[in-house]
Amino acid sequence: MLYLPPHFEQTNPEAVRELIAARPLGTLITLGADGLSANHVPFLLDERSGEQGRLIGHVARNNAVWHHFDASVEVLVVFQGPSAYISPNWFPTKQETHRVVPTYNYIVVHAYGPRLIHEDETWLRGIVGRLTKVMEASQPLPWKMADAPADYLHTMLTSIVGIEIPITRLIGKWKASQNRVDADRAGAAAALEAIGDDESVAMAELIRPG
Amino acid sequence: MLYLPPHFEQTNPEAVRELIAARPLGTLITLGADGLSANHVPFLLDERSGEQGRLIGHVARNNAVWHHFDASVEVLVVFQGPSAYISPNWFPTKQETHRVVPTYNYIVVHAYGPRLIHEDETWLRGIVGRLTKVMEASQPLPWKMADAPADYLHTMLTSIVGIEIPITRLIGKWKASQNRVDADRAGAAAALEAIGDDESVAMAELIRPG
Repeated sequence: MLYLPPHFEQTNPEAVRELIAARPLGTLITLGADGLSANHVPFLLDERSGEQGRLIGHVARNNAVWHHFDASVEVLVVFQGPSAYISPNWFPTKQETHRVVPTYNYIVVHAYGPRLIHEDETWLRGIVGRLTKVMEASQPLPWKMADAPADYLHTMLTSIVGIEIPITRLIGKWKASQNRVDADRAGAAAALEAIGDDESVAMAELIRPG
Repeated sequence: MLYLPPHFEQTNPEAVRELIAARPLGTLITLGADGLSANHVPFLLDERSGEQGRLIGHVARNNAVWHHFDASVEVLVVFQGPSAYISPNWFPTKQETHRVVPTYNYIVVHAYGPRLIHEDETWLRGIVGRLTKVMEASQPLPWKMADAPADYLHTMLTSIVGIEIPITRLIGKWKASQNRVDADRAGAAAALEAIGDDESVAMAELIRPG
């Protein structure tokens, strides 16, 4: 199991959903006859299905992940948000007590479930259409499946396999200095903002005391 | 196994090393009695040891990952670089043939190996010192272990466990539109640059034809 001290658990389902939507490229982890595997697959969280929803996506038919696996072990999909190294220098507490060590902050979502396979072209067409709509939402003129010739689309749909993971466990770990006093959180947030790259600024927003 | 078409394989060990150094927070994947687990651990690639080097890091002693595992299955550590959704709209080929579908680009490194455990304080002190030196390198006044009181440091060192993974397989997958013609690569790179966030710009640099 993921090591998850209670103060790092993200119990707000909205925050978990937002991370998957913002960083949809999941790391799909499976156990096969040759050991552990990871494949990187964009997923959509479909909440209309099951108590905790399901993840849907697709992989290349040539990717062994859909047939080469131990079905008795649930698969794990990891979604990763911003991360940042946290220096002890950034904590005012350090100046007083020096009782501080370096750490790393990050936010992640872990989803477990059985993996179902779909080879039916109608199912695949529906899933690819939904994924496309979400992914193209920010385009000025969103690409649509109908933009591609029918014969080409048919060929592409037969070269992929659908993956559906009904979620049995959905875990959010937000390691964002919640175990520090407000002054330390403010110090780390300010230091990350000063670094200024997107990841650091995103982590600063997560750390800043409310 | 990771699905890895030959044109996406990163065969330059320098590029693989650079990704681990730039994004040291690895996803440590293990198989335990309760199934698959992932934990997020900053690693250092130590190339002075073994043919492919070793990963070294540490976890909280309270993290079950170091004792609760199936030693017959090699662990897998995934390091993830920039990723970006790639719209068919960005490929000039689309205007001509419309034979293009959406995809996702990403770069990742997968490292396999057995997991060794270290509880010796001298070993831990050495590893923490090396990690600190690397992580603090960009600080104006790098924090050093000696900055912390000896009793506190001793307590901290007894609350962690060292992880060493002698690498048996090191795989780089750079999915960065290498299968597209130069005009398409240039189009996607320009579109990502226009989006302008750090991830998109980093992916644009990876895609742009040489």
